[in-house]
Order: sequence, then C-alpha cells, then structure tokens
Amino acid sequence: MIGIFDSGVGGMTVAHAVEALLPQYQITYYGDLARTPYGSKSRETIIEYSIANTEFLLRHGAKIIIIACNSAASVASGILRQKYDVPIFEVITPAVNRAVTATVTGNIGVIGTRATIRSGIYEKKITEQAPGLHVFSKACPLLVPLVEEGWLNARETKMILRKYLTPLKLKQVDTLVLGCTHYPLLKEQILHRFGKKRTTLIDSSVEVALTLQQHLEENPALRESLQRNGENRYFVSDLTSAAVAIAAKIFGRQIDLAKVQS
Amino acid sequence: MIGIFDSGVGGMTVAHAVEALLPQYQITYYGDLARTPYGSKSRETIIEYSIANTEFLLRHGAKIIIIACNSAASVASGILRQKYDVPIFEVITPAVNRAVTATVTGNIGVIGTRATIRSGIYEKKITEQAPGLHVFSKACPLLVPLVEEGWLNARETKMILRKYLTPLKLKQVDTLVLGCTHYPLLKEQILHRFGKKRTTLIDSSVEVALTLQQHLEENPALRESLQRNGENRYFVSDLTSAAVAIAAKIFGRQIDLAKVQS
Repeated sequence: MIGIFDSGVGGMTVAHAVEALLPQYQITYYGDLARTPYGSKSRETIIEYSIANTEFLLRHGAKIIIIACNSAASVASGILRQKYDVPIFEVITPAVNRAVTATVTGNIGVIGTRATIRSGIYEKKITEQAPGLHVFSKACPLLVPLVEEGWLNARETKMILRKYLTPLKLKQVDTLVLGCTHYPLLKEQILHRFGKKRTTLIDSSVEVALTLQQHLEENPALRESLQRNGENRYFVSDLTSAAVAIAAKIFGRQIDLAKVQS
Repeated sequence: MIGIFDSGVGGMTVAHAVEALLPQYQITYYGDLARTPYGSKSRETIIEYSIANTEFLLRHGAKIIIIACNSAASVASGILRQKYDVPIFEVITPAVNRAVTATVTGNIGVIGTRATIRSGIYEKKITEQAPGLHVFSKACPLLVPLVEEGWLNARETKMILRKYLTPLKLKQVDTLVLGCTHYPLLKEQILHRFGKKRTTLIDSSVEVALTLQQHLEENPALRESLQRNGENRYFVSDLTSAAVAIAAKIFGRQIDLAKVQS
C-alpha cells in the first residue's frame, strides 16, 4: 500500500495524480486537518507532526510514504528518511528535477507557504543541480485561504495573484514551481497572469506520481510488496464540510473521509 | 491569577485590554499556535482543544478563565462551565450585551470565522435578550490571514472588506460586532467602510475586560484569591517569528513568548 500524508486536504491532488497514473495500487491517505495548516508553524512542530503521520501510515501497512505537503517535505523529509526504512517520496525533488530541465531563460520561480519559502529548500536543490540557474522565491500565504474560501475566479484573487507574481514576472521567470498542493487549483489563473505561451508551470503532484511510477518500474520487489487488499482509504484527524467540498472538487467525485484521532 | 486562552495570538487583544483596565492582577496567557486556527475546525475538535487549554491554565493556578477565542467560546463555553468550578468568561456575552444597548436601528451585524458564524451563537444570544432585533451575520475567513500577512492597509484588504461588509451595510446595520480577536487590528479600515458617524463597532476584548472588572467589584473573595505572585506570563504551543511580530503589534512592546508542549 502507498501511504500519503498532508497537513490537510490539499495533498489529495497528489493522491489523485497517483490514482490516475497507478490505479492498480492501493492508496491510504492521511490528512492532519485537526492541526492544519503546517505552513505557518515552526520547524520543530512540523517535524513532530510529520513523524506522527508517518507512523500512522506505517501502522496501516504502508510500504512507501509520500509526503504530499511542501511544508513537511521541506523541513522533515531528511529526518524521516533517516528514521524509517521504507522509501520516502516527497513533492519537492521531482518538481525540482522537472524545473531544471524545463527552463530556457535559466530563471525559475517558486511560490509556496511561508514555511516552505523560508526553508530555502527549492533554491538549494535547484542550484545544487545546476549552479548557473537563478531562483526567485515568493511566499504566498493568502492563496490557501483563498482556495479554501472557494474564490478561485474572484477579482480579489486575481489582484492578490498579481501582487504576489509581478516581482517574479519582472525577473523573466519562464518556469514556475507550484510549491504548495493547493495551488494547482489556481493553475489557470496563474497561467493567465504569466502568459500561457511563455511559462511552464510545474505541478508537483503530477511530478511525484511520475517519479514513483519510474521507481516502481525499476524495483519489482517493491512493486510486489504493494499488492492491493482493499479500496483506497482517506483518513482525516478532523472532519469539516469545507474539507469534504475540496476533496470532491479535487477528485471530481464524492470522497468518503474517515475521522481518526490525531 | 487570570487565565486567558486563545487558538493563537489574536486573543492577546483581550490580554492587552485586561492588563490596561486591571493592571493589579496577574495574567497567564496560553496561545495554541501549534493547532491554530480553530475557526475552520469541527465542533468536537474545538471542544477537545478548549478542555486541554483550560486544564493547562488551571494547573498554572488560574482562578478565573477567559476564553479569548470566539470559535472556542461559541462551541465550548457551556461545556467548560459545566465541567469546571472557576468563573468562566468569554468574548461573546459581553459583546452581545453591549450591542443590544448600542443599536438604534435595531439591525446588528456580526462578523467572524466560519466556526463562529456557523454556530449561530451571536444571533441566538442577541434575540434571546431582545427578540425584536435583527441580526445579520457574515463569515469572513480571509481577514485573519490578511492580518497575519500584515496587509492592514493594502488595497486588496479594502476590496475584500468591501465584499464581506457590503451585504451588512445594505441591511442598515448601525452596530457591528467584531466577532474575532484579530479584527480589532482592522478597526479603522472597517469603520471607513461603514461610515464612522453612523456605526458603533463592538470590540469584544474591551467588553470582556469591563465585564470582568464589574464582576470583581462585586466579588471581594474572588478578588482576594487573585493575588499577584509574579509577572504576567505568555505561553504558546508553537513559536514563530510571525507570532512574535503580531504580539508586539498588539501590545506596542516586545512580549516574551514561552513555548510549551501542546
């Protein structure tokens, strides 16, 4: 079974991408809605929560963990890899690999929550791979609440996107990493701001699914350990009607969320 | 000692108002930043957190509890009053009492988080006291993140305020309850939207401090149990630089936040 965790329901964009690409494997999702969001919290607290979430998924039989939360991936993935034997995937590395090959101008933009941008992880990983590239980062803390308010096409959302994205546009960024799992829901609006023809948007949920697919192709033993023994399951530590609505929007169908203790 | 809890640092507006009015008494504040915000979470989860926060303050010697979080007050104050012997104050009742006497047109507006507005608590309490009054409520989930982003005077904030407040203005509301402890930081901007001369804004932090003052005047035994034995203390379950900045903005001075386990 493939275990996926996120601070909330945004990481369901990852579950949806994995389901679309690898429907033969079983997914167990854990969304820590009782303590969401992680993006505004400290490093220590995010690490503590990430360990708890990983152990929850391992207890449920996960043979692979995907960290579907950028804030958790940026501060906790190294520690989780040290601590646990199972392969640990996260949304950052696959997006970085894709961004490095996609850029023509050499100017890559990254948007995310405060915790993700403050960690400097994208900048570090991109320049490690390709020291000549330039990375321009921008924390966009209002985008998650705007998505959760459902204001995808509101004029206020367009103005806030302009405010956040204009500095990146002025740097002639041609490749923009969506460093938060909520942002793919604003993909059209972001492309509109940047100019569709000139910009490549990197959606980390798609990239991590592709990376996992390749890893499974190369590791038959791991592939066999993943045998499906039931339906995909979606656990949350808190259950709200807003979460049910966002899950339905991401999957395009009703998703049963089961509440468990955080 | 007076114990005050909130989901985050917004409730420090209450601590600040109590300190200004009753400087002779010691305050212990607990901000549950590791699990903030409460406003988007379920009733059950908010009750569980409110009980934990109250017990933390009682262990530290609180003789009075103030629930400085509207979301917690709206769903958990009845349960806390049943469960504990100490007097429990909250930010809703004093604001309701003041709104009922302040209105001339009989049309009262209430703004707050999703959890607070969904609970219907202001409407219920206002119409219990004065069945002839009309209450118009509006959930404003973007205002807390806008305050935390520091965009108090941004054009986007003005537009979002207009979007949220125009329906209330059209109802000829003359009294507006700020049903969230972050909102007093937007007082000027909200008054500008409504017209300063025509509108009374009810700031629940001031109202709860006045109510506590009166209660202490009438209860000498309780007053004596409150003897100060040290400085005011500010505990948080997570420590971030954004929280330190908001606390400094509320108090107009640096506040030492001590991190404790949630």
